[in-house]
Amino acid sequence: MATTVRSGGAGDALTAIEPLFSRVTPRLPPVQFTGTASATYNMGGGQPDPASLPRRVLTEIVAELLASDGGEAALMYGDASGYLGLREAIADKLARWEGVEVSPDELLIVNGSNHGLALTVQAFVDPGQVAVVEAPTFMGGLRPMRQIGVRVEMVPLDEHGLQTDRLEQKLSELQAAGTPAKLLYTIPNFHNPAGVDLSLERRRRVIELAERYNCVILEDDAYGELRFSGESIPSLYSQAPKGRVVRSATLSKILAAGLRVGYLTAPVEVIGRLNALKLDGGASPFVGRIAAAWLRKEHDTHVPDLIEVYRRKRDALVDALEQSFPAGDPLRPTWTLPAGGFFLWLKLAPGVDPKRVLEEAGRRGIAYVPGNAFFADGTGGEYVRLAWSMLSEENLQTAGGLLAESIRAAA
Amino acid sequence: MATTVRSGGAGDALTAIEPLFSRVTPRLPPVQFTGTASATYNMGGGQPDPASLPRRVLTEIVAELLASDGGEAALMYGDASGYLGLREAIADKLARWEGVEVSPDELLIVNGSNHGLALTVQAFVDPGQVAVVEAPTFMGGLRPMRQIGVRVEMVPLDEHGLQTDRLEQKLSELQAAGTPAKLLYTIPNFHNPAGVDLSLERRRRVIELAERYNCVILEDDAYGELRFSGESIPSLYSQAPKGRVVRSATLSKILAAGLRVGYLTAPVEVIGRLNALKLDGGASPFVGRIAAAWLRKEHDTHVPDLIEVYRRKRDALVDALEQSFPAGDPLRPTWTLPAGGFFLWLKLAPGVDPKRVLEEAGRRGIAYVPGNAFFADGTGGEYVRLAWSMLSEENLQTAGGLLAESIRAAA
Repeated sequence: MATTVRSGGAGDALTAIEPLFSRVTPRLPPVQFTGTASATYNMGGGQPDPASLPRRVLTEIVAELLASDGGEAALMYGDASGYLGLREAIADKLARWEGVEVSPDELLIVNGSNHGLALTVQAFVDPGQVAVVEAPTFMGGLRPMRQIGVRVEMVPLDEHGLQTDRLEQKLSELQAAGTPAKLLYTIPNFHNPAGVDLSLERRRRVIELAERYNCVILEDDAYGELRFSGESIPSLYSQAPKGRVVRSATLSKILAAGLRVGYLTAPVEVIGRLNALKLDGGASPFVGRIAAAWLRKEHDTHVPDLIEVYRRKRDALVDALEQSFPAGDPLRPTWTLPAGGFFLWLKLAPGVDPKRVLEEAGRRGIAYVPGNAFFADGTGGEYVRLAWSMLSEENLQTAGGLLAESIRAAA
Repeated sequence: MATTVRSGGAGDALTAIEPLFSRVTPRLPPVQFTGTASATYNMGGGQPDPASLPRRVLTEIVAELLASDGGEAALMYGDASGYLGLREAIADKLARWEGVEVSPDELLIVNGSNHGLALTVQAFVDPGQVAVVEAPTFMGGLRPMRQIGVRVEMVPLDEHGLQTDRLEQKLSELQAAGTPAKLLYTIPNFHNPAGVDLSLERRRRVIELAERYNCVILEDDAYGELRFSGESIPSLYSQAPKGRVVRSATLSKILAAGLRVGYLTAPVEVIGRLNALKLDGGASPFVGRIAAAWLRKEHDTHVPDLIEVYRRKRDALVDALEQSFPAGDPLRPTWTLPAGGFFLWLKLAPGVDPKRVLEEAGRRGIAYVPGNAFFADGTGGEYVRLAWSMLSEENLQTAGGLLAESIRAAA
C-alpha cells in the first residue's frame, strides 16, 4: 500500500488537542465486561452460562424473521423507543411474571442495562449534585456518576438490604446542608455484589423516604427473574407513586448479553425525556425483533431451566467453600447465601491479606473482582465478589477449593 | 390481572420530580429516523433502499456464525471497543478502498453514526463552549450540541463545500473574542443535506485552519462509499496530522441501518478516551460478528451494486424535476447535482411559500424534511431536502411530478 493515513499531515497534533478534551471525558481505561477471559476459572464478570445460550433457537428466529414481512423493517431505521413488538412482549412478560401492568410506551429499549443506568443518571443529576448509592454497589451505576462529576454519598447494607435508618439520616443531613440527594440508586434483588434482598418493608420505607426528600429512585433489577428460592418481592416500581421510580432491567442474563438489550420502565412522561436524551439513533430494530420473538416463544420455558442451572452452580461453589472451611475455622470468610442471581460476596476473615489472596488466586488460575471496586470511596478491600455464572459445576467445585487454598496462603 | 403497577403508591409524583431533571435532559421529542413512514412517497429520512437489503445473505451469515466456535462469544459480553474481527475487517476495507492504513485499535465501534457524532461532541465540547458547524448541516451533529448547551456558530457552504475564507474569519473572530472554537463539524462528501463535495484544496485549507486555531475536526462521512461519479477525494482524516481529525462513518447506508453499526477513526490515544466515555457496555458482539462476515464476503460486490441503484434513483428524481421545470421557468428550484449519497437539496424560487409547498406535497402523499431543520439558527425555510434512497425509480418519477405540482400550487 503506497498511500498511508496522515500522508498529507505534518506530524502529530496529539499534544495540541490534549486541552481540548471536555471535562467529562475520562482518562480511565474503558469498562470491560468480560472479566479476565484468559483465567482458567473466570469468576470475574457477570457473564451468563455459555452452555445455556440458545444458539439453535436464535438461528431459527433469525431465519424466520428475515424471510418474513418484518425482515425489511428489521434492517431499516426504527422507532427511537425500540421496536414496539419488543416493548409489547416485555409488557406481557411483566404482566405474566410479576402481575404488573405496564404499557409499551412506559418502556424504553436501551443497549443493555449499563446504558439504561447511565442514561438515568444523566437525566437526573447535574455535575456537583448528589446521588446516594449503596455500599457496596454495582460499578455500572457508579461509573456515569463519576463521569458527570456527581457527588456520590454511600449508605450501608445489611442482610436485609439498604439500611433505611441510615438512609433517612443521610437524606436528612443532605437536605439540611442544602445539597439534597436527587437520585437514589438501589439494587433490591440478590444485590450485585452483596447477594442480599431488600425486604418488602424496607422497599416501602425507601419509597416513603424518597417521597419525603423528593429524590428519584433508580431501581436496578438485572437479575430479578433468576430467583432460586423464596417468594418474589414486589418491585419498588410497583409499590411507588408514578414517576418516583425508574426501573432498569435487561435480557442479558436470561437471553444473551451479546445482543445488548436492556429496558427502562417509567411513566410515559419520563420515558419521553429519557428517550430524547438518548442520541444513538435508536436501539437495533433487528435485535429488537429477535428478542421479541424469543420472549414470545422461549422465555417462559427457558427461564425455569436457567434458574435450575444457576442454583446448581451457586450450590457447587458454596459447597466447595463449606467443605474447605469447617465451622469454627478462623480463616472462614463470611457470606449471606443469595436467593438468586450470579454472585457470592465473601468477607475475608481478619488477618487475611486481600491483595495476597488475589495474587495467590491468580497463580491458581482464578479471576474475580476485588471488593473495593464496589465501594464509591474505594474501601471494601476485605471483600471478594465471585461470579458462579460462567463456570461448570465441576469447575466451581475446583475453584472453591483453590480459592480456599489462596485464602490460607494469604493469612 | 388483579394487581396493577403502582398498587402500593399514593398517586402521582410526576409534578414533584419535574425539578429533578438535569439541565441536559431535553423537553423535545426524541429523534425519529424513519421519516414519515405513512406517506406514499417517503422522501424524509436517510433510509436505505429496502429492496437492496441483503436478507438472504444475512440469514446465512447468522446460521454460520451461531453454529461456529464464534457463536458463543457472539452472545456474551465483548470487547468494549467492539469486536476485534470487525475492526480488522473495517481496517482492511479502508486499505482496499481508500488506500488508507488504519490499525484496529484506531477504530471504535458505535451504535450507528449518530452515536459516534454525539460521543465526539461530548468528548470535546463543554457547556457554553463553541463548536462551528456548516450551514446547512446534519441535525445528528446539531442535536448533541444543543443537548450539552454548546454555543453553535455557522459557516456557509457554496458549491465546493464549506467556504474556507468565511471559516477563517469565524475562527479568527472567535479566538479574538476569547471564545475559541473547540470543534469543527464538517460533512465533506455529498454533503447531507446540501449534496456538495468539499474540494481537496479546501480540505487542506480546513486542516490548516484547524491547526492554526487548534480545534478538532469531526469529519462525518456516512455516505462516502456511494460515489456515482468523479474521483474519490481523500478524507480530511488521511490528510491531517495525527489527532486533528475524528472521522465518523457507518455501515447503515451500505449494509443495513437496522443493525446499528457505526465506527469512529482516530489515533489510539483519542479512541481510548472516546471508549471510556461510552457507557453502554460495548457494541453488540453478535451484530459485530455479522457485520464483519458481511464486510469480508459481500461488501466489495454489494457496494458497486448499490452505487448503480442509488445513481439511477437520483437520476429518476432529477429527470422528473427537469421535465417539470423547463429552463427559464421562474418557479424552477435550483440545486447542485450530487455526485453520490441519498439527498437532493432544492432551493425554492423566490415567491414560492415553503409552508404551502409542504402542505400541498403532504396532500399528494409526499413527505420530506423542510430546510430549516438543517440550520443551527432555524433559518433555511426556502430549502427542501429530498431523499431518493427509499423510493423506486417509478415512484421517484411520480413524486418529482407531484412535488412540481405542489410548488406551482404554492406560488
